Amino acid sequence: MSMSLAAELWPDVQPETARRLMLAGVESFAQRGYHATTTRDIATNAGMSPAALYVHFPSKAALLFAISRSGHQQALALVEQAAASAESPPAAMRAIVEQFVAWHARRHLVARVVQYELGALPEEEYAVVAGLRRDIERIVRDLLAAGVESGHFHVGDVGTAARAVLSLGIDVARWYSDRSRQSPAALGREYGELALRMLGADTTA
Amino acid sequence: MSMSLAAELWPDVQPETARRLMLAGVESFAQRGYHATTTRDIATNAGMSPAALYVHFPSKAALLFAISRSGHQQALALVEQAAASAESPPAAMRAIVEQFVAWHARRHLVARVVQYELGALPEEEYAVVAGLRRDIERIVRDLLAAGVESGHFHVGDVGTAARAVLSLGIDVARWYSDRSRQSPAALGREYGELALRMLGADTTA
Repeated sequence: MSMSLAAELWPDVQPETARRLMLAGVESFAQRGYHATTTRDIATNAGMSPAALYVHFPSKAALLFAISRSGHQQALALVEQAAASAESPPAAMRAIVEQFVAWHARRHLVARVVQYELGALPEEEYAVVAGLRRDIERIVRDLLAAGVESGHFHVGDVGTAARAVLSLGIDVARWYSDRSRQSPAALGREYGELALRMLGADTTA
Repeated sequence: MSMSLAAELWPDVQPETARRLMLAGVESFAQRGYHATTTRDIATNAGMSPAALYVHFPSKAALLFAISRSGHQQALALVEQAAASAESPPAAMRAIVEQFVAWHARRHLVARVVQYELGALPEEEYAVVAGLRRDIERIVRDLLAAGVESGHFHVGDVGTAARAVLSLGIDVARWYSDRSRQSPAALGREYGELALRMLGADTTA
């Protein structure tokens, strides 16, 4: 387990012990699933005692929530910045897909936990994360609707097309590995092109 | 748990007790994950004793394998039939996507186990399932390559585009529920259109 990876993944989390526990949680949850992982497994993986884990996270669910919330916040921040950085709807959509896909490839273990363990979150924590997901979906849907209005995009159903765009990125977390042929950035660029075509855009934009 | 659903899912599996156990396995694995599910959980869910489970499946892994293999066989059969049913590459690709997407929506619980519990299969069983997956991927990739050759499709990288087409279908298993707005068939039709556009095809084909 790399300490520098934990710092890279969660630069805002302090102290470093908490980051180490989050990384150990990601590795354990991604490998065996949330329900089959014990707090003892996670503490052992982080080289700590279960008691030391509880200093930072009162429960296994609290640790999952920290991982899930921060992952969704990172993805939302990328999508917001990409949407704000571009002038036309196609350029903004391309930037969003490039960033969203590259994040799911580069952070595939974190993303796998973020995307596939939603159902394990307790009710209140789930509501927080669901709000972040709705924010991401809303940005993509609103941009798509704006692009349909401006004549840049041509789709049958805006909701379905928005979901398909996000699916392309999310599913990357399932299959991407460190042995994959393409870099996260290169994959993002290819998917950006595919997504624009899917939306009926002029891909020279 | 519906008995008729088990018969509908696995018409070829006999006796009915084995089908009931497979359905109980799907429900348990989809809800809590393979590793957190015990054979006792599955037997209880099927209204049987653990001993009765072992009459049909020698282990939890054997039950997962039965579910995973049959799910992959069903998906492969749909893809093969769709590919054979159409004359032009775009028409064949549309039929494949429609069928593949609709299957992942209609059978979303089975598909979730099929797609997300691959890593839990023992080595030899994994090899069998990986062979079925390669067959599905090969059909899509070969069709895509043939369509590029014939001038019907225009893509940058055939492998990446083939994976993106399959991703659209696979990710449906993650989000689709019985409360979803669209029927499996209607979703399949919309995704068929989106996939053809993604591949640079004339969608009037």
